[in-house]
Amino acid sequence: MQKFKVTFMPDNKSVLAEKDRTILSAAISAGVYVNSVCGGDGVCGRCKVILKKGQVSTQPNGIITAEERKHNIYLSCLTNIHSDLEVEIPESSRLSFDSLTPSQVGERLGSLYSKAEDIQPVNAKFKEGLFKHSPFATKLYLELPTPTLDDNAGDLERIYRALRQLGDFPVIQTGLFNIRQLGELLRDSEWKVTVTLGKRNDTVEIVLVEPGDTTDKNFGFCFDVGTTTISGQLVDLNSKKILGTKATYNQQATFGNDVITRIVYAGQSDGLERLHEAVCNTMNQIIRELILEHNIDLNDVNCVVCSGNTTMIHLLLSVDPAHIRKDPYVPTANFLPVLRAAEAGISINPRGLLSCVPGVSSYVGGDTTAGVLSSGIYQKDELCILIDIGTNGEIVLGNKDFLVACAASAGPAFEGSGVTSGMRASNGAIQKISIDKTGFEVKYSSIGDKKPKGICGSGYIDLLSSMLEAGIIDKGGKIKAAGRRIRQTDTGKEFVVCFKEETDISSDIVINEADIENLKRSKAAIYSATAILVKHLGLCFTQISRIFIAGGFGTYLDIEKAVKIGLLPDLGLAKFSFIGNSALAGASQILLSNQAMTMANNIASRITYFELSVDPGYMDEYSQALFFPHTDLTKFPTVKF
Amino acid sequence: MQKFKVTFMPDNKSVLAEKDRTILSAAISAGVYVNSVCGGDGVCGRCKVILKKGQVSTQPNGIITAEERKHNIYLSCLTNIHSDLEVEIPESSRLSFDSLTPSQVGERLGSLYSKAEDIQPVNAKFKEGLFKHSPFATKLYLELPTPTLDDNAGDLERIYRALRQLGDFPVIQTGLFNIRQLGELLRDSEWKVTVTLGKRNDTVEIVLVEPGDTTDKNFGFCFDVGTTTISGQLVDLNSKKILGTKATYNQQATFGNDVITRIVYAGQSDGLERLHEAVCNTMNQIIRELILEHNIDLNDVNCVVCSGNTTMIHLLLSVDPAHIRKDPYVPTANFLPVLRAAEAGISINPRGLLSCVPGVSSYVGGDTTAGVLSSGIYQKDELCILIDIGTNGEIVLGNKDFLVACAASAGPAFEGSGVTSGMRASNGAIQKISIDKTGFEVKYSSIGDKKPKGICGSGYIDLLSSMLEAGIIDKGGKIKAAGRRIRQTDTGKEFVVCFKEETDISSDIVINEADIENLKRSKAAIYSATAILVKHLGLCFTQISRIFIAGGFGTYLDIEKAVKIGLLPDLGLAKFSFIGNSALAGASQILLSNQAMTMANNIASRITYFELSVDPGYMDEYSQALFFPHTDLTKFPTVKF
Repeated sequence: MQKFKVTFMPDNKSVLAEKDRTILSAAISAGVYVNSVCGGDGVCGRCKVILKKGQVSTQPNGIITAEERKHNIYLSCLTNIHSDLEVEIPESSRLSFDSLTPSQVGERLGSLYSKAEDIQPVNAKFKEGLFKHSPFATKLYLELPTPTLDDNAGDLERIYRALRQLGDFPVIQTGLFNIRQLGELLRDSEWKVTVTLGKRNDTVEIVLVEPGDTTDKNFGFCFDVGTTTISGQLVDLNSKKILGTKATYNQQATFGNDVITRIVYAGQSDGLERLHEAVCNTMNQIIRELILEHNIDLNDVNCVVCSGNTTMIHLLLSVDPAHIRKDPYVPTANFLPVLRAAEAGISINPRGLLSCVPGVSSYVGGDTTAGVLSSGIYQKDELCILIDIGTNGEIVLGNKDFLVACAASAGPAFEGSGVTSGMRASNGAIQKISIDKTGFEVKYSSIGDKKPKGICGSGYIDLLSSMLEAGIIDKGGKIKAAGRRIRQTDTGKEFVVCFKEETDISSDIVINEADIENLKRSKAAIYSATAILVKHLGLCFTQISRIFIAGGFGTYLDIEKAVKIGLLPDLGLAKFSFIGNSALAGASQILLSNQAMTMANNIASRITYFELSVDPGYMDEYSQALFFPHTDLTKFPTVKF
Repeated sequence: MQKFKVTFMPDNKSVLAEKDRTILSAAISAGVYVNSVCGGDGVCGRCKVILKKGQVSTQPNGIITAEERKHNIYLSCLTNIHSDLEVEIPESSRLSFDSLTPSQVGERLGSLYSKAEDIQPVNAKFKEGLFKHSPFATKLYLELPTPTLDDNAGDLERIYRALRQLGDFPVIQTGLFNIRQLGELLRDSEWKVTVTLGKRNDTVEIVLVEPGDTTDKNFGFCFDVGTTTISGQLVDLNSKKILGTKATYNQQATFGNDVITRIVYAGQSDGLERLHEAVCNTMNQIIRELILEHNIDLNDVNCVVCSGNTTMIHLLLSVDPAHIRKDPYVPTANFLPVLRAAEAGISINPRGLLSCVPGVSSYVGGDTTAGVLSSGIYQKDELCILIDIGTNGEIVLGNKDFLVACAASAGPAFEGSGVTSGMRASNGAIQKISIDKTGFEVKYSSIGDKKPKGICGSGYIDLLSSMLEAGIIDKGGKIKAAGRRIRQTDTGKEFVVCFKEETDISSDIVINEADIENLKRSKAAIYSATAILVKHLGLCFTQISRIFIAGGFGTYLDIEKAVKIGLLPDLGLAKFSFIGNSALAGASQILLSNQAMTMANNIASRITYFELSVDPGYMDEYSQALFFPHTDLTKFPTVKF
């Protein structure tokens, strides 16, 4: 097919594009970001461009005024390329990824806001055999028979007929966008096209029809949208390979540390809109960085699967989360329909689809469902617990017969937020620490073996455990020792983990008493929630056979030390498995298999929610856990300091 | 629920609206027409209004700029009423029904363009018993259990659960629009809501959720979108009553008389857009007039079913019809998905649905499918023919075992277009005529017994037959007699049917030799197409048991006279039934029953298309039919002049 050079100004970026491709599609291929809310339906009017040179054809629309037409202004989604072009993207049509200035974000997060960081996922490989490979978006190459007087089925029916010869598609849906371009497209491509099919609830949608065979380019993203951290993965939907994983702080963090403050902020003027923009910007940033690194055209990203807690998913979709925090804590929706990603502001192919993993309740969201899916506890015979340590901790107890979940508001300390030297588990984060008992000298290793920039969750677990063992802190978390690393400050004592000279930043890496208090409250919330859940079901810890620990700890978590500080129950190391970001792993399974998607729906329906706050014993249990490891040492028989 | 007075300027129209209804919805209730393309999704930005007085709340959107916000500009679809309001609708947001000036239209159509006219449909009653009453849009009133800590299903799941207790809905779909407003709406209405469900292909969509019980207000429209005439019916979906039927000329007629000229025009710059606007304007005019007359709120019109020929449906949906007229005559789609009516520019409830009756091929459209449905020939044992006389005549031959259809380009003469004194079958149209054989004096009766304005199709059939019997014209259609009613003009002879003084217009009502030629070509096209179809199937006319005649002839058609002029075959009156506008009748059945919708899909799949122009005998047959009644008089044994 004939190709033309399209140059976008003021970026001065060029791309070769087939005749009759839309300018919007070419812009996306060129990595020039043009606004589009409606997914190329020609109704939102955000993607106006100015044609400087060249020939185009455009579809009728009621948006471009006669005056604008005189000035060569076109809707890029409805305008087709007929020659080499020079196109200007006016400021108003440019997609801004950064409506928050870095300084706004930096104010709360220190100097950590920058590019999203590569992370190495745990258990990343798609478990072949468990679910059939049937991705959320599938591409099928069709060589359609040319119509004749005897075979004069309509263009759309010709595609349906070919699809139904290839597989069992009881309900196929299509939008006007595809229908409107079908006539030219099929003839120009000589009836050889690639159809992208997306699973849309219990139907199949023709997402896109493209000329020629593009089946080798089919990519998707999965996300874990956390309150503090957003992690995303670029997946090749053909090879099932995870091409890259990145995580960064949720830009919403500038508006509050936990879901409650976010919900309150959403109720203020423009609050919902700003929170929505912040989460979109963060996700779009991860998408942009990963596709640039892997040299992938955004047009070839056809779908996104999101796991996240219920509040995050509400905010992503601009749905008011107000009732999540009002008795009886009912969200607007736990099960959301598949949407066009553009409707939620996520920039992939403008027609691409977005699926949110179904949640259970206001405080047990799709991230938990995805975790249950990827941990496999829903199909185990023996009793299991899944503990997902995040700003909202979630604990699920059960097996193939039942699943009960509760939520614990743990705060962001183990994600490295809200603590003096905290950072995410990314390059330069200290993740392993040991302290010499006599001189309090510190040995550490950082992710990527870089000069340290801060301490991540697993580093804090090691640090607390080592400080306890070395006698630097007492069981209440107060710093009681003295030495060159221990300093008095205005707000209490602090312990220097690395002096400035060793670090990659311009200050010492420290932990102070307020940090320890924060971490103690986090660990107490997780432990006591787990204990209450077990008790609520009339069980005791010894009856539990397997415990899966999930969370954004990077690749490393020392379970023994987590038990020592009283974060996890003292049940013997053999029962524990650290499974990393189980929400992201579940989302990637759903991205790669419709069977996994069906199973996620099934799991979310099966999980019973247990509201911790109504349990009369919870506050007692929490208070008792506000010690290292616990007030009642008989519960931690192996822990000795 | 609390109500507020909302006044719209500059119309100075007021309406009482419940708290939290959107301004757009109130404007629609007030009969103030505000633009909306996206159906209230908040993405098209067409419905901006200026708030002059009062309190509102608005949802976040990226369309209203900070500058606009300062000037109190809001998107009316996303802005909720919180007090009495005064709202100005700026010119740019006003919905124009009349982008064509009456003079533009009048140029071609004489003085006939005005309001749509009431017509009395034949066979209008919904045939109870044949199809179950299950309208395209159904309203269900739900009293939802108030959520508690023990029953904390999400808002959306609570609705799904209640629906599934009422019926079998395997696949329910919902859009973000409804989800976004659910939280407030359910609580403000104390969990008592009405859910409007629409059949969307093989799924059910939650079209709308409204506070309180509004089930008594559920209306729909059905249309026959013809090349020359558009007819529409307002139907009460609860009582199954047709509340009113109106017809008017398709405003597209200013761009050409038949589908071929329209297709050519669509290929010109802006052509498709102007044709699309014209058909929408015409349909919206009929909708507006009928709801005003019946005092119905446009928000309570939830669905539209359209039958029409394939080109008309393409133009209605802004789909390029170019390939319909290019060998091998393949349309973009015969089976179209259910859409939101707003996507096609049809103004009903912004969330309301549009279904187009499926067609068979480029020249046998959904109007034929609907005609086959309403005539019932698809389930007869005996051989039947359905002849739909319109600008595109369609003939279907068959029974429960097979159905074959062909199309004849008859031109608009029998719809009263393209002939000197022609008009549609509406008030003041002469529909019955007899002529005294000696003095050529004319007796006539007009529709509504009004002073005559012109002659409609059935009037022309009577007139030609009477002129033949009186010896005024010969078998070739030339005026050969003389008398006070016969005049010579520059272009040939004419016969005066009514002198100016008797008429309601400022001129004589006449028929001239060019008109007779036009009518003769129309009748020859219909007759010869029917004859060739019968011959093509190896049959002869005597084997046909029943002949159904359809078309926009109003309530009257004299079959005997139609045989006398050679429009219909000479098979004995007992075999004929005049069934009026069968396409509209079929569309109304589909509107009222999903079973009929399924049957229409089935019928469209069953009909085999026969391309007349490839039959070697067709031109001969046509030429022979260019006489009154026919060159071969043995084919019309009962016709004597």
